[in-house]
Amino acid sequence: MVEVELLYDYPRLEERLIIERLRARGAEVTLTNVNDVPLVMGERVADVAVVRPISMFKAIYAAAARESAGTWAVNNASAISVCGDKVLCLSRMAASGIRIPRTVIAVDSRSAEQAFKASPKPVVDKPPIGSWGRLVSLIEDERTWRTILEYRSLLSSAQLKVHLLQQYVETGGRDVRVIVLGGEVLGAMERIGPPDDWRTNVALGGKTVPYKLNGELVETSIKCAELVGGDFIAVDILVDRSGNYYVNELNGVPEFKGFMEATGIDVAAHLAGFVLDRAKR
Amino acid sequence: MVEVELLYDYPRLEERLIIERLRARGAEVTLTNVNDVPLVMGERVADVAVVRPISMFKAIYAAAARESAGTWAVNNASAISVCGDKVLCLSRMAASGIRIPRTVIAVDSRSAEQAFKASPKPVVDKPPIGSWGRLVSLIEDERTWRTILEYRSLLSSAQLKVHLLQQYVETGGRDVRVIVLGGEVLGAMERIGPPDDWRTNVALGGKTVPYKLNGELVETSIKCAELVGGDFIAVDILVDRSGNYYVNELNGVPEFKGFMEATGIDVAAHLAGFVLDRAKR
Amino acid sequence: MVEVELLYDYPRLEERLIIERLRARGAEVTLTNVNDVPLVMGERVADVAVVRPISMFKAIYAAAARESAGTWAVNNASAISVCGDKVLCLSRMAASGIRIPRTVIAVDSRSAEQAFKASPKPVVDKPPIGSWGRLVSLIEDERTWRTILEYRSLLSSAQLKVHLLQQYVETGGRDVRVIVLGGEVLGAMERIGPPDDWRTNVALGGKTVPYKLNGELVETSIKCAELVGGDFIAVDILVDRSGNYYVNELNGVPEFKGFMEATGIDVAAHLAGFVLDRAKR
Amino acid sequence: MVEVELLYDYPRLEERLIIERLRARGAEVTLTNVNDVPLVMGERVADVAVVRPISMFKAIYAAAARESAGTWAVNNASAISVCGDKVLCLSRMAASGIRIPRTVIAVDSRSAEQAFKASPKPVVDKPPIGSWGRLVSLIEDERTWRTILEYRSLLSSAQLKVHLLQQYVETGGRDVRVIVLGGEVLGAMERIGPPDDWRTNVALGGKTVPYKLNGELVETSIKCAELVGGDFIAVDILVDRSGNYYVNELNGVPEFKGFMEATGIDVAAHLAGFVLDRAKR
Repeated sequence: MVEVELLYDYPRLEERLIIERLRARGAEVTLTNVNDVPLVMGERVADVAVVRPISMFKAIYAAAARESAGTWAVNNASAISVCGDKVLCLSRMAASGIRIPRTVIAVDSRSAEQAFKASPKPVVDKPPIGSWGRLVSLIEDERTWRTILEYRSLLSSAQLKVHLLQQYVETGGRDVRVIVLGGEVLGAMERIGPPDDWRTNVALGGKTVPYKLNGELVETSIKCAELVGGDFIAVDILVDRSGNYYVNELNGVPEFKGFMEATGIDVAAHLAGFVLDRAKR
Repeated sequence: MVEVELLYDYPRLEERLIIERLRARGAEVTLTNVNDVPLVMGERVADVAVVRPISMFKAIYAAAARESAGTWAVNNASAISVCGDKVLCLSRMAASGIRIPRTVIAVDSRSAEQAFKASPKPVVDKPPIGSWGRLVSLIEDERTWRTILEYRSLLSSAQLKVHLLQQYVETGGRDVRVIVLGGEVLGAMERIGPPDDWRTNVALGGKTVPYKLNGELVETSIKCAELVGGDFIAVDILVDRSGNYYVNELNGVPEFKGFMEATGIDVAAHLAGFVLDRAKR
Repeated sequence: MVEVELLYDYPRLEERLIIERLRARGAEVTLTNVNDVPLVMGERVADVAVVRPISMFKAIYAAAARESAGTWAVNNASAISVCGDKVLCLSRMAASGIRIPRTVIAVDSRSAEQAFKASPKPVVDKPPIGSWGRLVSLIEDERTWRTILEYRSLLSSAQLKVHLLQQYVETGGRDVRVIVLGGEVLGAMERIGPPDDWRTNVALGGKTVPYKLNGELVETSIKCAELVGGDFIAVDILVDRSGNYYVNELNGVPEFKGFMEATGIDVAAHLAGFVLDRAKR
Repeated sequence: MVEVELLYDYPRLEERLIIERLRARGAEVTLTNVNDVPLVMGERVADVAVVRPISMFKAIYAAAARESAGTWAVNNASAISVCGDKVLCLSRMAASGIRIPRTVIAVDSRSAEQAFKASPKPVVDKPPIGSWGRLVSLIEDERTWRTILEYRSLLSSAQLKVHLLQQYVETGGRDVRVIVLGGEVLGAMERIGPPDDWRTNVALGGKTVPYKLNGELVETSIKCAELVGGDFIAVDILVDRSGNYYVNELNGVPEFKGFMEATGIDVAAHLAGFVLDRAKR
């Protein structure tokens, strides 16, 4: 019997479904709340670690702790940390010829000033880390830029002071999310942002509908997951007015409630199957 | 002629020496202050990027920006970021059987309480990131632990809230630093900590002397550099009273002023030679 | 009929009792959760404002907002803010000849170094703001001091970087709390700290017993409340082995659950009576 | 001979002039860099303390430390701290019938949402503390508001999370600064903001010209200084298109370089004269 450890911080519907599907397939599931349980380097807990903390750093460290004992982690620490940092992630995409929004990195407010001046407006400003569109701003004028520059310089995390200035891809408030599992595409959905927010995140109140796959989308998504070395990856893609795809970001601990509702695909069941099949080999 | 870009934030003696040695060997050196110059994703600047910002995140992002254009970065972003995060780094060491101090990771103050209770005292407490011994504490009693726990919970960076609780390796206030370049060991030195501080960092006022290499040290150090995929890595090793080696941390943007003074090895010249030879291939 | 507004953030037993006692005496009580309701400068809401937010700044601003319309606030913004800042509070005590622990203020880590060197050990270190003994440390050795100095410099609030270094008054882990209402002493209790913590705060697990009043205690406490201009003030007093009193801090939004249990005094009823009597004049 | 202590952190032209003028009048001047020198509660250093640290909290604590020994501080700690906190300051103005921009205080993001919805647009958003227009934003649309709300919630100082939402007074980019010394008006100047910034702060690149005094301006300014109990206060006043005055903020450690240049008034000499005359009484 395969022993699976599920590591989490705040259990969502996703985690409950994964546990259920794993148990339905006969796995012995150990639950570890990483806020309560210290993670001992080199200690083996189960055959596989399914890594589900919402906090990015907790997810990375949960994976790293289990990998230190030679345990297979889904996803592994490297994949989660590359997906979690937009600079690392976009760098790999760009180096492999995947289309991304034009991106400039400014590690200081002086270089940020230069980058802003040189950018066509409106321009998207974001820090390297953060989920659910947090701290992502669409900047049209100098005044808003001054405000953001001031606030950023006051944040105490060194990472949150770094600016990514990106081309604003006009999508009509929509984006596409593809889920890749074990090198294969599970399906895709489209998210339609709320009317008062140009960001499409479901957490911000957007809606989701299924999206038809095609060769380019499938190929791009699989390539992205491969580039970060991830087993279970959500790929967020912007589609401009001419239908061009731009990979916007990757998620190494994907939420999939909205995806399941939109597509009818039982993501948790697929994940459970993949984990158990691979673990048995 | 090989074009080399040196990316930096605050130029130290190390950077000046690297530039000099590169130019002496006929390289065309471009200097980029990452605080002034925006880094454009996908833009090629030179054949090689020598990455030297003191700020860890600036170094990672400088490397990632250049790698996005297919440029070889010394070190690459992945190596710098794994070395810069003690959890990621120690996880790889442990998984490969390299001896490290016993380490427990606590991502929350609740699990930190458990970890502290279970640890033999004194115990070393540190966050995953940080250089020069910053925020590294040797804790002998409950009262100091309470204080540290309170302060940690107030730090606003999510990463700085994470605790590594580590076995205190009694070294008599000494540690060994080995520099690995291109898969070969350049040399080693010993650092002797200041009498009023149990930490050995030269930045804190320690002294340095040459240290005789031996097979185990060479093998371990090369393996460490390989595990993080780094071309130019400093390996910091604790030696206990019985002479056992414990890899304590790796540095992906090594300072080497003290190393040069202690060993007489011209690290900058070796680095320049390695970079130019490899770039020509 | 007197209209009373009670402003709060997280309602505790104290707030529920105050509301009950006010209503029992026929007052019309309006409840304002300051986290939900914007405070309009110059807007009159009731005859009196009873200010009870736990967050110090929320309490200060709630009082100031109501005072801007000429409303009497218990306590007023000035009293809450002087009590909330140990430097302001101790300065007034010292200037009036009230005995306080010897105190040195260091607004920077450089002056903190000087102050620490010059202080007899052990020495108490605390920031100017903070309740329940938070960030209060008893420092016996250089190593703990280094740790605290490092952590303090990383806190992002300018106020939390300031050090008060204070004489350690040996109390045997006890202190006395006196409550002053409308210029008269309601009673006193003694708090006995938990065995594993030298701090006596009830929030940290201490016990409370009644404490017999005497002339010096009464006079000192009334003087303290007067010096900060407060109507309802808790005075925390250290008693050394020889029985000398040292005023340690004042509280401008006093908790009194433990006080009621220890002394049997219905603080909420007294407060309600005072507020309604005075408002009618 | 009068002994004067000047307490500072970063000496500007203002401090150098004050020292010179004091010495020219025969005072014995002691200089105290508060970053280097611990401030001992109850310790007398001179007859008068002239408080000039740029950092607001350092100024407050420097004044409070000297007042603890009964020394006269210019300004006193209470005046500096009320001027330094826009809520405390505006509350006193409003309570005394001085015209201020309509102001709503929101101590939490929930109440801030309510306050923003209810405010006519554009609206000015600022935190209670901060100088030189820092973090002051003019908000015209929902999107900018979202951004600011997100950033504010991430700042780690509790005070910086508090919102003041204020009426935007259309001034044509100008404001008036009056300096009050010892209950009398020294003079006034007008600041004309840079064309690309609606804020008028000289630090942001504005220009200064003399401004003609009149009865209302003089009376208002003297009243303001009186309300905060300050000896040496700068009063910043907005003038709308109809010529109405709105007191915007007070400064308890006034900069006066621009004022001297605009008006030709030797502020330092007046200050020195006032301090020495009063000290001799």
